[in-house]
Amino acid sequence: MTDERILISHGSGGKKSQELTERTFLKYFTDPALLLMNDQAVINIDTKKIAISTDTYTIDPIFFPGGNIGSLSVHGTVNDISMSGATPIAMSAGFILEEGLMLSELERIAESMAVAAAEASVRIVTADTKVVARGSADRIFINTTGIGILSEKTNICGQGAKVGDRIILSGTIGDHGIAIASSREGIEFSTPVISDSASLNYLVQTLLEAVPEGVHVMRDPTRGGLATVLNEIASQSSVGILIREAKIPLKKAVIGACELFGYDPLYLANEGKMVALVREPDAEKALEAIKSHPLGRDAMIIGEVVDDHPSKVVLRTLMGGRRLVDRLTGDMLPRIC
Amino acid sequence: MTDERILISHGSGGKKSQELTERTFLKYFTDPALLLMNDQAVINIDTKKIAISTDTYTIDPIFFPGGNIGSLSVHGTVNDISMSGATPIAMSAGFILEEGLMLSELERIAESMAVAAAEASVRIVTADTKVVARGSADRIFINTTGIGILSEKTNICGQGAKVGDRIILSGTIGDHGIAIASSREGIEFSTPVISDSASLNYLVQTLLEAVPEGVHVMRDPTRGGLATVLNEIASQSSVGILIREAKIPLKKAVIGACELFGYDPLYLANEGKMVALVREPDAEKALEAIKSHPLGRDAMIIGEVVDDHPSKVVLRTLMGGRRLVDRLTGDMLPRIC
Repeated sequence: MTDERILISHGSGGKKSQELTERTFLKYFTDPALLLMNDQAVINIDTKKIAISTDTYTIDPIFFPGGNIGSLSVHGTVNDISMSGATPIAMSAGFILEEGLMLSELERIAESMAVAAAEASVRIVTADTKVVARGSADRIFINTTGIGILSEKTNICGQGAKVGDRIILSGTIGDHGIAIASSREGIEFSTPVISDSASLNYLVQTLLEAVPEGVHVMRDPTRGGLATVLNEIASQSSVGILIREAKIPLKKAVIGACELFGYDPLYLANEGKMVALVREPDAEKALEAIKSHPLGRDAMIIGEVVDDHPSKVVLRTLMGGRRLVDRLTGDMLPRIC
Repeated sequence: MTDERILISHGSGGKKSQELTERTFLKYFTDPALLLMNDQAVINIDTKKIAISTDTYTIDPIFFPGGNIGSLSVHGTVNDISMSGATPIAMSAGFILEEGLMLSELERIAESMAVAAAEASVRIVTADTKVVARGSADRIFINTTGIGILSEKTNICGQGAKVGDRIILSGTIGDHGIAIASSREGIEFSTPVISDSASLNYLVQTLLEAVPEGVHVMRDPTRGGLATVLNEIASQSSVGILIREAKIPLKKAVIGACELFGYDPLYLANEGKMVALVREPDAEKALEAIKSHPLGRDAMIIGEVVDDHPSKVVLRTLMGGRRLVDRLTGDMLPRIC
């Protein structure tokens, strides 16, 4: 088993496909809806409003400090669902495997997905596997599509920012980006940087229980980083955003790595952080709630929504200057998620 | 525009990503939930039961007689949802693009998806795009994940076959497989074989309206063909299946191509056909309903569920013999969907 590899026939839909499913996937994916092995899963729901989110993961390397493409594919989609205020309940998994991938690697990835899904109380209810010839993909790509249930009154979205809202960042930025960059370059730091990849649904739940009406926008600063999501929100809500460099939590090792690589941490990807825009009267209570959760320990209020410079993000620097924080131009770190 | 190509920076999450989204995708994907450009779509539903299905499309070539990877990615997922008796309502689209893909090709694909989704009355509500370096994927892979709503009493699944059920096949088999094989090999037949790729949701609706209680199992014989899905059903329901070779509709050109390529049509993929197992008293009415729909014109009752040889599929041949129809062994046509 340990030196077995994926063959083209594992994607045939025939006997070898069945073997792959039974030996590798069904060991870890054990949801009753999935085990029925129909071409679709049927699940019961009790809601009038659902959130749907899709993400394809092409991260390179597929195993990295703090996780692998499997755990990441669950965390990322759980987080996208959670950012609407929805409770993620179910998820699909679509695999593209390159001929030659080690079955043992696929097993580790499937196991990580199952563990991550269980931790987030999300069911993996349906899956699909395709195999392509060597050279037509890079080892493994995974699509996960998630479904969450929403209460009818919840309306948290990029269009919801209001002047005066406080911007809470749930912790340090850049950890995921630096973990991937250093792992890709084979560089080891004295203090290793570990990806922050994690499911934020319980952190979000804690926040929404503390300030049920107070949250206007939530978003996770993944690909493109904090700068990109703040620009998206500023533009979607036609408001200005002002953030303070001094307030942005950063690990020392990340600052050092950014100097080494020449990266701006504002553009580095995160996979276990959220930005929440909260109305001013609820801001302190919201911050406290976030800080009470292990994934929000280092949270800070980093800025606010202003009625100046609509659709633009401005940073007040450590030196007291102001600079425009534009969207990312070019490509900083391809295949970061 | 016509000679523009996908660049790595189109997957950055930054300015170029936004440009790709706005110039290429938003021209065709115009659902209000998608246009909000949040990381998830929120939709209203009115049901207690949903069906979810995921499929990743890696078909080669990406343009083929009768469709392209875009239309196929909608048809395939609409059909997987429909086979549970659910009404497909919404869909996600996840793209993996290889650096160098022509933007004009991506446009044609996105347009085909939009057209196919509109024809099936399914909303494309959320999407994601990743770009990988040249050589790390083969032009374009698409994941679609669909959601359908189900009435509480509907229970159509692979476990539902009962002895005596009639097996209805909605039309000729092998068209998609031969269309792809001949297009890949550059072979032209005097009568060209066109893929049957099509959405079956309205055909299913017609059937279920005619015999609301009569349908036990539905499945679309895609990868692995008719032989594979019948084996799956026989095994899931622990019943025997007997089919008659003389009753299986086949186009002359497909028969000829199968002789040329050495294929068994029972294993060839279809993308616009369904198999329905219907209780005997409703079988004729069901057949009539299917035949009344343009996509079911050539439907036939091809066999029945028997209490002999549980979990096995037997074919009564043209010559009157009987042979076991096993699952596909090996790989007949990789990247067929």
